[in-house]
Amino acid sequence: MDFALDPRTEGLRDNLLDFMDSHIHPAEDVFRKQLGQLGQLGDRWAWDSVPVLAELRAAARKRGLWNLFLPGEHGAGLTNLQYAPLAEITGRSHLAPAALNCAAPDTGNMEVLAMFGTEPQRKQWLEPLLDGEIRSSFAMTEPDVASSDATNIATRIERDGDQYVINGRKWWITGAMNPNARIFIVMGKTDPNAERHRQQSMVLVPRDSPGLEIKRGMEVLGYDDHDHGGHAELEFHDVRVPVENLIGADGDGFAIAQARLGPGRIHHCMRSIGIAERAVELMCARAEQRIAFGKPLAEQGVIRDWIAESRVRIEQLRLLVLKAAWLMDTVGNKGAHTEIQAIKIATPATVQWILDKAIQVHGAAGLSQDFPLAGAYARIRTLRFADGPDEVHKNALARHELRCQAVARQHSHA
Amino acid sequence: MDFALDPRTEGLRDNLLDFMDSHIHPAEDVFRKQLGQLGQLGDRWAWDSVPVLAELRAAARKRGLWNLFLPGEHGAGLTNLQYAPLAEITGRSHLAPAALNCAAPDTGNMEVLAMFGTEPQRKQWLEPLLDGEIRSSFAMTEPDVASSDATNIATRIERDGDQYVINGRKWWITGAMNPNARIFIVMGKTDPNAERHRQQSMVLVPRDSPGLEIKRGMEVLGYDDHDHGGHAELEFHDVRVPVENLIGADGDGFAIAQARLGPGRIHHCMRSIGIAERAVELMCARAEQRIAFGKPLAEQGVIRDWIAESRVRIEQLRLLVLKAAWLMDTVGNKGAHTEIQAIKIATPATVQWILDKAIQVHGAAGLSQDFPLAGAYARIRTLRFADGPDEVHKNALARHELRCQAVARQHSHA
Amino acid sequence: MDFALDPRTEGLRDNLLDFMDSHIHPAEDVFRKQLGQLGQLGDRWAWDSVPVLAELRAAARKRGLWNLFLPGEHGAGLTNLQYAPLAEITGRSHLAPAALNCAAPDTGNMEVLAMFGTEPQRKQWLEPLLDGEIRSSFAMTEPDVASSDATNIATRIERDGDQYVINGRKWWITGAMNPNARIFIVMGKTDPNAERHRQQSMVLVPRDSPGLEIKRGMEVLGYDDHDHGGHAELEFHDVRVPVENLIGADGDGFAIAQARLGPGRIHHCMRSIGIAERAVELMCARAEQRIAFGKPLAEQGVIRDWIAESRVRIEQLRLLVLKAAWLMDTVGNKGAHTEIQAIKIATPATVQWILDKAIQVHGAAGLSQDFPLAGAYARIRTLRFADGPDEVHKNALARHELRCQAVARQHSHA
Amino acid sequence: MDFALDPRTEGLRDNLLDFMDSHIHPAEDVFRKQLGQLGQLGDRWAWDSVPVLAELRAAARKRGLWNLFLPGEHGAGLTNLQYAPLAEITGRSHLAPAALNCAAPDTGNMEVLAMFGTEPQRKQWLEPLLDGEIRSSFAMTEPDVASSDATNIATRIERDGDQYVINGRKWWITGAMNPNARIFIVMGKTDPNAERHRQQSMVLVPRDSPGLEIKRGMEVLGYDDHDHGGHAELEFHDVRVPVENLIGADGDGFAIAQARLGPGRIHHCMRSIGIAERAVELMCARAEQRIAFGKPLAEQGVIRDWIAESRVRIEQLRLLVLKAAWLMDTVGNKGAHTEIQAIKIATPATVQWILDKAIQVHGAAGLSQDFPLAGAYARIRTLRFADGPDEVHKNALARHELRCQAVARQHSHA
Repeated sequence: MDFALDPRTEGLRDNLLDFMDSHIHPAEDVFRKQLGQLGQLGDRWAWDSVPVLAELRAAARKRGLWNLFLPGEHGAGLTNLQYAPLAEITGRSHLAPAALNCAAPDTGNMEVLAMFGTEPQRKQWLEPLLDGEIRSSFAMTEPDVASSDATNIATRIERDGDQYVINGRKWWITGAMNPNARIFIVMGKTDPNAERHRQQSMVLVPRDSPGLEIKRGMEVLGYDDHDHGGHAELEFHDVRVPVENLIGADGDGFAIAQARLGPGRIHHCMRSIGIAERAVELMCARAEQRIAFGKPLAEQGVIRDWIAESRVRIEQLRLLVLKAAWLMDTVGNKGAHTEIQAIKIATPATVQWILDKAIQVHGAAGLSQDFPLAGAYARIRTLRFADGPDEVHKNALARHELRCQAVARQHSHA
Repeated sequence: MDFALDPRTEGLRDNLLDFMDSHIHPAEDVFRKQLGQLGQLGDRWAWDSVPVLAELRAAARKRGLWNLFLPGEHGAGLTNLQYAPLAEITGRSHLAPAALNCAAPDTGNMEVLAMFGTEPQRKQWLEPLLDGEIRSSFAMTEPDVASSDATNIATRIERDGDQYVINGRKWWITGAMNPNARIFIVMGKTDPNAERHRQQSMVLVPRDSPGLEIKRGMEVLGYDDHDHGGHAELEFHDVRVPVENLIGADGDGFAIAQARLGPGRIHHCMRSIGIAERAVELMCARAEQRIAFGKPLAEQGVIRDWIAESRVRIEQLRLLVLKAAWLMDTVGNKGAHTEIQAIKIATPATVQWILDKAIQVHGAAGLSQDFPLAGAYARIRTLRFADGPDEVHKNALARHELRCQAVARQHSHA
Repeated sequence: MDFALDPRTEGLRDNLLDFMDSHIHPAEDVFRKQLGQLGQLGDRWAWDSVPVLAELRAAARKRGLWNLFLPGEHGAGLTNLQYAPLAEITGRSHLAPAALNCAAPDTGNMEVLAMFGTEPQRKQWLEPLLDGEIRSSFAMTEPDVASSDATNIATRIERDGDQYVINGRKWWITGAMNPNARIFIVMGKTDPNAERHRQQSMVLVPRDSPGLEIKRGMEVLGYDDHDHGGHAELEFHDVRVPVENLIGADGDGFAIAQARLGPGRIHHCMRSIGIAERAVELMCARAEQRIAFGKPLAEQGVIRDWIAESRVRIEQLRLLVLKAAWLMDTVGNKGAHTEIQAIKIATPATVQWILDKAIQVHGAAGLSQDFPLAGAYARIRTLRFADGPDEVHKNALARHELRCQAVARQHSHA
Repeated sequence: MDFALDPRTEGLRDNLLDFMDSHIHPAEDVFRKQLGQLGQLGDRWAWDSVPVLAELRAAARKRGLWNLFLPGEHGAGLTNLQYAPLAEITGRSHLAPAALNCAAPDTGNMEVLAMFGTEPQRKQWLEPLLDGEIRSSFAMTEPDVASSDATNIATRIERDGDQYVINGRKWWITGAMNPNARIFIVMGKTDPNAERHRQQSMVLVPRDSPGLEIKRGMEVLGYDDHDHGGHAELEFHDVRVPVENLIGADGDGFAIAQARLGPGRIHHCMRSIGIAERAVELMCARAEQRIAFGKPLAEQGVIRDWIAESRVRIEQLRLLVLKAAWLMDTVGNKGAHTEIQAIKIATPATVQWILDKAIQVHGAAGLSQDFPLAGAYARIRTLRFADGPDEVHKNALARHELRCQAVARQHSHA
């Protein structure tokens, strides 16, 4: 057992930390202003057209901080364990993932295309995504069914000659309000009579397909998240795409969705830890500066308790995420299934707790637009639903534990 | 001891419950739409100009559901204990307090004017407020000092002949973005050399006073709360008002602020309990309707646990608030000080917990604009700061408990 | 609504508080020593033979502080609402309930005999119990079934001529290790083929019945609770009693058990609040006296937070229990069912939390025999199981809430 | 970074797991019975004279499972990271640490003698301890001072010619009730005028020294812990030892205490994780077997939630402890100070939570002598005080965090 980083990760980490200080953090205000100007021109959703982002991307690419998330030949070729500490750092600024072309949902979509896409699909969609020229969305969740169970997905994809015809409703499709989200990966039911895990397939649907309607943006605690493309409600009315747009084989939908989940979760978790670290920084800084009843808040025992608890929780959480990454690298996503579930359970709850305390230390200002805490809180809160609410994951993890314990009991009695 | 409502309260309660069903709830969507139209005309903050609200007000007044909050001759003449169960009901809809002319911060301001205002002040400002013709704001909190300790308030109010000249900065001034908030009660320092609790005074400052600048609206999570007038940041640059605008005597600022607090807190707490009840309703309804993994959520043990906990917590909380109201009526606001502090501590934390669970039962929809839960969450979260963060109140309550216990120990050893 | 005590309760309260100071608290050490001496003579379980207890009882009786728990002609005739504040006070000392002849499980057993006993049964058993001459046990819980569902009770009671023959196993039979627990109320199955709630009956079984074996005392966190008769495991081997020993009618067992529960729970809850008050007293006293890192613990913010939280929680809890008592008096035990369940859920959890904090303030001493906190902790912890674990009650309360909400929804749509 | 065990640890782990199954667990009941018999002979504290323990020790030693805790030449020579997973396993049974000669407080005392003892001291005391022939105690904590701050220790050690004369009071001296605890390491004040951290020294005091009085055993909840030597209160009345009994130099007391802490804490934490694992096993087994309301408890959502939470918390905690061990090995105990503090904070709280849930799943039986859960609960609860209550450690850790953040802020502004 060894808790030290390897030299390549160490080097990238230094590089990235330096880039955060020199480029990312100074750009945060600029981005906000430029996006505001765009909004006044009626284009508030087109967040990735903001000039400063293009500059950041060029700089990141030049430094070799590009597509770090993607293993294999198409990306930086890092293991999950190597990428994890870097993803954490990008979590500290809203701008960083986009600047490094490591932002969800594009990352997961690129993985899907890299793993399951045909040569033409990769040519047409993966390449511009890897170059950061276009963006994409992943359209799975539906308003009418409990989408935490992916086998419920009901949007209909029917074959008609050499086309698929799509009908249905989706919502919470992150990034899809952005007009530059050119391509959607849509999950739907191709064969209602197949075995339960083989009923769904995924197809590529270009944004401008006739019959695809962007209904509205969903809000999260008052935020429309236009600064990363919002969360759209979509309707598909007889949308037609060529059969070549199928990803993988007919009936592969559930399997592809599962494959996409593992890395996606671990990226979210690592970035969330970066958010927690940022929150602790802000909490400490505020606690030192703010005087109440004659002394800095930092000398109040209750606030110290929060700071200590935050540190102790973050350290535990990070190690759990890193171990899950290591398992994904060594025994595969399937072998790491329980650990991935564990980080999905632990991360949002822990980080939400820390953000709540950091906000409390800031007073009402902590809830306002003057600090990044409230926005972070909203984002983290949604993670307790993203690909299934906490309770679903806890239930599954407990079932697994009960099974393991039953096996162990039998073994010890044998 | 007796836990039954008296007949007058019982009668008003039936009246109000009926009004909620027949008028308030049906008007909620109408209000939202009409306010949206107003917004498109560039007047999004003028929430109380929305037509449906005028209709609701006329109807409420006709039914005798008007100014229920105000004891004494100027209002409905209810005790706190009588008003409390009615305030709870108004908490169930965002529209109800305004429809009954029982909305903060006007309620507190009317109390101040009724108790401390001169005849001309009451004529000019209290009467139109009681009639619901204008609105008002209470300008105390400042960005640069920990305002939970009111003696910190630093805005300068200097006498210059027969005028006061005001200079300073305020923020989180609720309702002040609304152009119809015609009058501000401003707290500031008139005598920096006086004894600590006699340095501040309150003056009436009309909205259109030269030098009074409305800088921006503060946001709470992602909400600007334009639907009840927002929370303004204000700047006072040599703002001048006649000395007749002083409320009470010079140096009375702190005392008036204290007097204003008690009823204000209890109203907030009662309405918050109404919010909690609404959350439980929505949670139960959703849990019955939503099917996941083959059965309604209502049959999941974890969700039942939340429902039971919510009910048990609400019942306790309500009784505590009612007892505080009873104490205010029987021993006065000062005698009820500890109990008022207790409800200030208990209410937001409890209701926040319940809202979080209600949201979780709704999935991501619970955080969206499709349910009132997320907005309620944001409002309740701010209450953990309103007139002092939880920690300040807990600290004071503990000091009081330690003192009482010390006295009891001495007594028992005597 | 009115939160003041009535004069009779007020008078008894003063009387009892005075008695606590003048008699009970000074006797606590004496009791411990005398019981220790008894133990050395081989009679450690005969706690109610300790001389000082006889003196306390005589004094209490003389003061009119006797059988306060019992409504109606046989006892003091108080309502539940009147008895509740008195029961709370007795909770502050381990000795008080016994001194006033208000100790469980005798209280519940006397209620059963007063309500359901025949004249001869009352003559033979109720009278000496009311006089405090003998003690009793209630034998319901069984090791082999989940006894939280009373219909599971499996001990067999078979009629054989004019006798009942009893076979089965019981455990956690409180008080039964005391040789002076002369009579056991035993619940068992008389008719396995009857309707589910009519299968069980209760019979009176004298302690010295042949075939009744006291197997061992159960321990609770290391305590054998010999100072109030322990918790016995019992075996019944063909134990025979005359048919006249049946309480009520054949098949009444479940109904009697239910009738016994309501008052029993409310007494436990009130006494538990007394324990919590005692804990807060000790916590405050210790916090003032103990110096660490240069200042009293009472000046540590975290400890103040515990003190404040304790106070706020106790106040809420007490009101909930009082309201449940009021409901029992006004609408009956059945009408108060949900509220009784609510106090059963809320009380042990809240008091356990407070005791944990009080212990923490005392350091390791808080867990030792030098303070009453650890013993109280063990007793309160068992209440989370007594007549059903928390989870069973929460589940039932949630079901009830869901039903009420469903009815309300239908009503509002009608 | 690498989360796999090295081969030597892997081998010892297999060896130890096998030993647990083949020897330790089957001996648990035997030990209890033999100790009971000893108790009837009046020697209940002499727990290490129980025959089955001698057999276990012989077997363990033969298998090379002996003194695993001790790095360097005197012990097994494992690193902390290697010993940690083994210590965890020993935590699963009360008997295992003693069987392997790895039980506190002897482990810490052996470390002290190995690191700081003179040759004659090691010959006389370390050797029989390493051979498991005698036992020892560490006498630091005092009833009259907050001993969490070791500089408070007030027992007087005065030089008189070639002797030290000791006067003072100690309590919670674990193991000292056992007549075979032959040697006590006593910390006391040798120079009240020295610099604060140089006032104390440690001396070796044989049990049978005249003037050393064993007053009584302290209880923890209701346990006297006679099965591992209890926790004694001691008085020193002019106890005299030769100056050669000084450990290290005069004034080294504080430094030796600090050196002893690191490994001691990590051993406690690892064993505690073993306790938590055992609790999860028992919880799962019970949940599968116990039927209530028609289905096994394992199908209740709330219980699944506890199982999932337990697993997620244990995984995080173990990684934190392992990382602390790794840091101790790589940067030394001082460098690992914050991490050691973190595990001291996190471990008892987490394990207490898990034990509480495991108990709850067992019903009242979980609190009784029929399961190891209640005893484990008592032991874990004391860890929240052992070498300082949680709050002291949290406060220190927060201070450290605030300092680190302040440095980082300065750096980023430079």
